[in-house]
Amino acid sequence: MNEGASVTEAAANIGVVGLAVMGANLSRNLASREGNTVAVFNRSPQRTEALVAAHPEAGFVPAFSYAEFAASLQKPRTAIIMVQAGAATDATIDALVEVFEPGDIIVDGGNAYFPDTIRRERAVRATGINFVGAGISGGEEGALNGPSIMPGGSDEAWRTLGPILRSIAAVAEGEPCVTHVGHDGAGHFVKMVHNGIEYADMQLIAEAYDLIRRGTGKSPAEIADIFAEWNRGELESYLIEITAEVLRQNDAATGEPLVDVILDQAGAKGTGAWTVQTALALGVPVSGIAEATFARSLSSHPEQRAAAAELPGPARAIAVDDEAAFIEDVRQALYASKIVAYSQGFDEIRAGAAEYGWTIDLGAIARIWRAGCIIRAQFLNRIADAYAADADLALLMGAPYFADALARGQEAWRRVVVHATAAGIPAPAFSSSLAYYDGLRAERLPAALVQGQRDFFGAHTYRRIDREGAFHTLWSGDRSEIPA
Amino acid sequence: MNEGASVTEAAANIGVVGLAVMGANLSRNLASREGNTVAVFNRSPQRTEALVAAHPEAGFVPAFSYAEFAASLQKPRTAIIMVQAGAATDATIDALVEVFEPGDIIVDGGNAYFPDTIRRERAVRATGINFVGAGISGGEEGALNGPSIMPGGSDEAWRTLGPILRSIAAVAEGEPCVTHVGHDGAGHFVKMVHNGIEYADMQLIAEAYDLIRRGTGKSPAEIADIFAEWNRGELESYLIEITAEVLRQNDAATGEPLVDVILDQAGAKGTGAWTVQTALALGVPVSGIAEATFARSLSSHPEQRAAAAELPGPARAIAVDDEAAFIEDVRQALYASKIVAYSQGFDEIRAGAAEYGWTIDLGAIARIWRAGCIIRAQFLNRIADAYAADADLALLMGAPYFADALARGQEAWRRVVVHATAAGIPAPAFSSSLAYYDGLRAERLPAALVQGQRDFFGAHTYRRIDREGAFHTLWSGDRSEIPA
Repeated sequence: MNEGASVTEAAANIGVVGLAVMGANLSRNLASREGNTVAVFNRSPQRTEALVAAHPEAGFVPAFSYAEFAASLQKPRTAIIMVQAGAATDATIDALVEVFEPGDIIVDGGNAYFPDTIRRERAVRATGINFVGAGISGGEEGALNGPSIMPGGSDEAWRTLGPILRSIAAVAEGEPCVTHVGHDGAGHFVKMVHNGIEYADMQLIAEAYDLIRRGTGKSPAEIADIFAEWNRGELESYLIEITAEVLRQNDAATGEPLVDVILDQAGAKGTGAWTVQTALALGVPVSGIAEATFARSLSSHPEQRAAAAELPGPARAIAVDDEAAFIEDVRQALYASKIVAYSQGFDEIRAGAAEYGWTIDLGAIARIWRAGCIIRAQFLNRIADAYAADADLALLMGAPYFADALARGQEAWRRVVVHATAAGIPAPAFSSSLAYYDGLRAERLPAALVQGQRDFFGAHTYRRIDREGAFHTLWSGDRSEIPA
Repeated sequence: MNEGASVTEAAANIGVVGLAVMGANLSRNLASREGNTVAVFNRSPQRTEALVAAHPEAGFVPAFSYAEFAASLQKPRTAIIMVQAGAATDATIDALVEVFEPGDIIVDGGNAYFPDTIRRERAVRATGINFVGAGISGGEEGALNGPSIMPGGSDEAWRTLGPILRSIAAVAEGEPCVTHVGHDGAGHFVKMVHNGIEYADMQLIAEAYDLIRRGTGKSPAEIADIFAEWNRGELESYLIEITAEVLRQNDAATGEPLVDVILDQAGAKGTGAWTVQTALALGVPVSGIAEATFARSLSSHPEQRAAAAELPGPARAIAVDDEAAFIEDVRQALYASKIVAYSQGFDEIRAGAAEYGWTIDLGAIARIWRAGCIIRAQFLNRIADAYAADADLALLMGAPYFADALARGQEAWRRVVVHATAAGIPAPAFSSSLAYYDGLRAERLPAALVQGQRDFFGAHTYRRIDREGAFHTLWSGDRSEIPA
């Protein structure tokens, strides 16, 4: 609350630039918390005026130029940018650097690509001003009522920013869903991986729905009941909850289930692709996230789907014998695949931290995702527990709780992938996750043959199981082996 | 041959910079062809001297400075750079630009990342000099006896370069395996996708081997016979041929099959990752190539494999009833999956051409891959035929020949993926390819549910099957639908 806040110079302890719906909601969220007075600025003044007029209770301090905005902020000035990623962000940063002073703090709360954040942090730091890339998850509703916040940037900036962000973050079991993720681009990196996991989670849910629908003939409303039921167990999560809501929705115009009226071409804003591209650069196999990303792009190529429409499926129908058992199998397959997706995502964060020199507390990441963000779920407590038990866990799914869950679920998971394969139902994320599970646990992999091929055609050499060093077989010669 | 070529100024019609094994072999290849006199230059003169001394028959024109190298070349000067990708390439280009003149031609024959080639082409073009990024495939042996060559760059450069490259390229059915792929980075782009397809092809072969070995208990030497047999049918290809050679090889030190002595951690030089990263940017689902790339990185994480070693597989063993039938199923699964991999790769080239404004003859690409390169195969004639029949084919695997092959093979393919899944044998590329097949041919995809979820949590809107426009359901309101 902002009792008696008057529009004088330096009245505000925090400012927001960019007052589209995310920025406006974040401003209102900030203003609603004890101790905050919020300066607001937007390139077009109409938006500033409209926000201030619509929310007199917020006690906003409106500014109509960057200079006025800077003058309205107490030092160290702290401003959160909520504009479009890319050129608009760069332009806003440049304008703020002009009017801010060393020690001030510029926060980019947009969905920036983390290498851009690293670049911007370095450039802004050279002026003595702090720059913080902060991932903010939870959409419009989260921005207003409490998002999950993933800030990077310097320790100095965090000292000022921490209390403000803690005041507006979602709260899970008494803890605000914000932590200082790591330096420079660490926050946007973790937000990127959050979104990649979200892609996988959504695709897995979509496959589960499709398998049940095609396997049992149940209606979307009936399947909504199944998801609502699942939401009371170990799958409890926001995405499962809203899936039930979406499946229960009927289209007013046709009377059909809405999901049958929606065009089946999934859109994407690029964060899934970033997650996979980054994982490829880091050498981390995030196959489940990749399949989820590709499933969206496959769906969005109608001309190719038309060209494939005549390709045949199985010659005979594959029936589900016991519907209840099948649905329980799908539930277990979903949970097992979900564990794989999160394990791959946390693996990517671990590898990113090593590559970029960030100190990231993986358990803290799990905890700040428990509320406010799209993948919020009870399940994240189990991940936090796993890292609490072993902060250097090489493989999340190898932790006892998850290993047990996978061991319990793997037969059901296999039955579901077998059913999908035999029945001709695409389940790329389910089957990829299971292949990853079987690959990791394999005592020997045919990667040895790949190494032999590479040595044959490109003299790339191989290592041996029985002694150190690299070796090459003289394939075009007498086929003896030489040290390389 | 170079009858009477004497070391005078401007004696050479082509030069090579960088005389490590690839550059030396390419120089020898050039020198062996009628009409070519080859200037050679290396940063360390010892290598130049050694090459010239070892191959007097080549009539090389050695140079020991860039100025001498330039002086030894007829105009327009044409030089092929065969140095390490990255900084060494940039340094060499800069040095050549210093001594070359407008109209001259610099060719980068290394494995450059195509955006670097686009950047370099633009920079060099500004000096009036032509820059050509040329993918060269076939390894050391191909460089010496005839590689497959994928040059980009300007039409002007191609007029001079074409006859020279045709003289040294591999020959398939009377045609040299080189074509002007397209402008600027098109050549390196196509070479990148070639390598991505190679990753998929190798992983699929490795999975086929693993399935047969674990399914039938046959020895590597026995499986070598199977691959040799396959090499006489529709799978005929260099990679199948060398797989038989590798599997037949025994390790002298232990007497064991070499493939059992090689450490099962596959290396990678990054072109597979580039292919997938680029596909993600283009929105092209290359799931088979991605799974192949991830299979290599998964194999190379021993600490994670150790952490997963205790995870259980199927409770009961899954037996193969009829070995011969199973092996034939695996052969068909391999062929079907291979069709998917090539279809995804050509799809990426098509999308890249559209994105970067290149005019690429996809049938010509298939033809220049028939010899000289690692993925050389009879099979590529079928791809060339498909594009000859329809140059604008939206989906290679939808062309009649491939659609028929897939229709014939899909039941066997399903049986193999079912077996792998039930038996706990990782077959990520086989299963991903089949999921892609089933996804593309699906009449409806659960992407509609994903769109519903996205609209629910992020107001991302959806399209409808029955009318134009974007729509949003007021999920937090009265759940009516509004146009967006």
